[in-house]
Amino acid sequence: MKKRKIRKKSTGAFLYFGPPTDEAEIRYHTGFMAPDALFFLRLGRIHHLVVSVLEEGRARRTARHAEIWNFERLGLPEKGARPADVALALLKKVKVRRVFVTNEFPMVLADALRAAGLRVEAETGTREGARAVKTAWEIRQIANAQRATAKAMRRARAILREADIRRAGALFWQGRPLTSERLRAEIEIELLRQEYLSEGTIVACGAEGADPHSRGHGPLRAGKLIILDIFPRHRVTGYWGDMTRTVVKGQATPEQVRRYRAVCRAQTAALRAIRPGVSGATVHGQVAAVIERAGYPRRRVRNREEGFIHGTGHGVGLQIHEAPRISTRDNPLRAGHVVTVEPGVYAHPIGGVRMEDLVVVTRKGCRILARAPKALVIP
Amino acid sequence: MKKRKIRKKSTGAFLYFGPPTDEAEIRYHTGFMAPDALFFLRLGRIHHLVVSVLEEGRARRTARHAEIWNFERLGLPEKGARPADVALALLKKVKVRRVFVTNEFPMVLADALRAAGLRVEAETGTREGARAVKTAWEIRQIANAQRATAKAMRRARAILREADIRRAGALFWQGRPLTSERLRAEIEIELLRQEYLSEGTIVACGAEGADPHSRGHGPLRAGKLIILDIFPRHRVTGYWGDMTRTVVKGQATPEQVRRYRAVCRAQTAALRAIRPGVSGATVHGQVAAVIERAGYPRRRVRNREEGFIHGTGHGVGLQIHEAPRISTRDNPLRAGHVVTVEPGVYAHPIGGVRMEDLVVVTRKGCRILARAPKALVIP
Repeated sequence: MKKRKIRKKSTGAFLYFGPPTDEAEIRYHTGFMAPDALFFLRLGRIHHLVVSVLEEGRARRTARHAEIWNFERLGLPEKGARPADVALALLKKVKVRRVFVTNEFPMVLADALRAAGLRVEAETGTREGARAVKTAWEIRQIANAQRATAKAMRRARAILREADIRRAGALFWQGRPLTSERLRAEIEIELLRQEYLSEGTIVACGAEGADPHSRGHGPLRAGKLIILDIFPRHRVTGYWGDMTRTVVKGQATPEQVRRYRAVCRAQTAALRAIRPGVSGATVHGQVAAVIERAGYPRRRVRNREEGFIHGTGHGVGLQIHEAPRISTRDNPLRAGHVVTVEPGVYAHPIGGVRMEDLVVVTRKGCRILARAPKALVIP
Repeated sequence: MKKRKIRKKSTGAFLYFGPPTDEAEIRYHTGFMAPDALFFLRLGRIHHLVVSVLEEGRARRTARHAEIWNFERLGLPEKGARPADVALALLKKVKVRRVFVTNEFPMVLADALRAAGLRVEAETGTREGARAVKTAWEIRQIANAQRATAKAMRRARAILREADIRRAGALFWQGRPLTSERLRAEIEIELLRQEYLSEGTIVACGAEGADPHSRGHGPLRAGKLIILDIFPRHRVTGYWGDMTRTVVKGQATPEQVRRYRAVCRAQTAALRAIRPGVSGATVHGQVAAVIERAGYPRRRVRNREEGFIHGTGHGVGLQIHEAPRISTRDNPLRAGHVVTVEPGVYAHPIGGVRMEDLVVVTRKGCRILARAPKALVIP
């Protein structure tokens, strides 16, 4: 984390207050992990950090380009100062009367600063955009995360391979029923051993997979589509990986195979289309067309959406979803963007098929950051 | 989660927007886990939830007392609507012109609503307070979480017991050096197997323990204070546990024992003082006095704070830190509050001693929710 240089010169005063998005911003600029809410004022290349007495030692050791402020130095009592008091004291010390804030900056704080005569304005879109183009160092961190993700994916496949098929297609592993919960725990244990944290791992079998946000629960069954979506974060660097595979234990039906092939073709189309200068909307349109031509138009059936019902991809870095998006919005891709490519097709009750890899946009196209087996069927 | 009844009648319209704090609020009222930002409008007993098409099915199945809105029903295009458009459309549909928001509500949204003529005001302190008194159902969830935490703590002790002491006090376990990272991973694996997620587990050895927020890294050593602070969250219910023990592998020095005993006495004093009606500040004052009398006054030494440098406790529920606080602030305790009791004493370079249990305030005093061994020395 120490090797990364600050590349961009920025003007204006940017004021951040605490997690979650602002925490990624603070970490990006200083390398300092700030789990508790605090103030961070970016003035050109200098980062003014206000930290509690508990965080002070750690901040001094780990934050780059940072001037560390405590309550004493700000002339505030150790107890009883409200967040607005802290922000006002800091802004007074550094003689700033106008600040830009993120979309997450709280109204109550803005109201208090404005009441004290300061100008508080929303920063318009440039901030996340600045983080979207990754440095070589950042790409290595994300590639490491994706390799850990691929290893966890192989572990999931190995467990499914070892599992027995019993009555009514129920899967058993190590003598007990194999559930979404058990497989998820084993995936996340594999990641923990590599220093990656993972919270939302999806192991969604059959109809559950028709809802792309359902994490999955209960027994896993042979002959059903199982979506495995793994997105861990390194517990020190904070960078994420993100990968999805869809598998069937035992034998797949022709319709499952047809859907799987449509999604593979759609992903290949996306990987071919991605290059600097092309709009995310163009890529997304091509992906959607492949899936529609394969016979899976997006439509509403009995109050449920089916077909390709989400975007093609999103940026990944210190946040799991960040700029740029590959969706219906016009969003030009640039070299150094790191994005997921994750077409899918969904229907009730057959479930979902999704295939997701993480790529970095290169000068001529894109490069997959880590590979893992793609076969649909696990014998 | 289905058994909990809504107890309190509230007036006014409360508008929430997305995680993290608001997510706890949404879950508290509806039981619905909302990882992505969305709107939640509480109007008396009815909860209006605006969800994306991806969340709609899950919201209909799992949210209580909720009216689910999608973009179509709000008359919005499926793509391109900004958050402010969504909020305005919802408030128009339900004919609300004045809303209360949390401390986390974003300024950019408030500005947009105000520009459209709505009144947006900060709710003043009552919200977190309402969640502070737990129902019997909630207390059971937190007690379950604390039992899982105690089990993980016993696992950590067992690993330290199994570890060998080698040259210069280095600990080895299963043939490899035992580090903070390895012990943390084993603790969190134990929790994962019980369906609990844990991110910030502290395993801080020696001088690292002098900073209460340092998670700890590198080799663990015999004869040093090791702080083990475990706080996992159930991945389905969302309730937290929180427990800390301090141990020494091998032999403890008389000064380590003296600090440990001071902290134990301070915790006992707190457990005796906690009952409905007493102020958190009174409890905290008694705890601080015990530690000071034992010879560990709070003071600044070479730019570091030492002594008892944090509050005595905090509420635990759907957030790891919530109301009430047991600190210098006047905060009367009530039956049904669930709070940590966690005195500590810190100094450089000896490290920290902290002892933390979770209690529910009862009619006559308080009850510890789950127990775990407290012995300082692990042979």
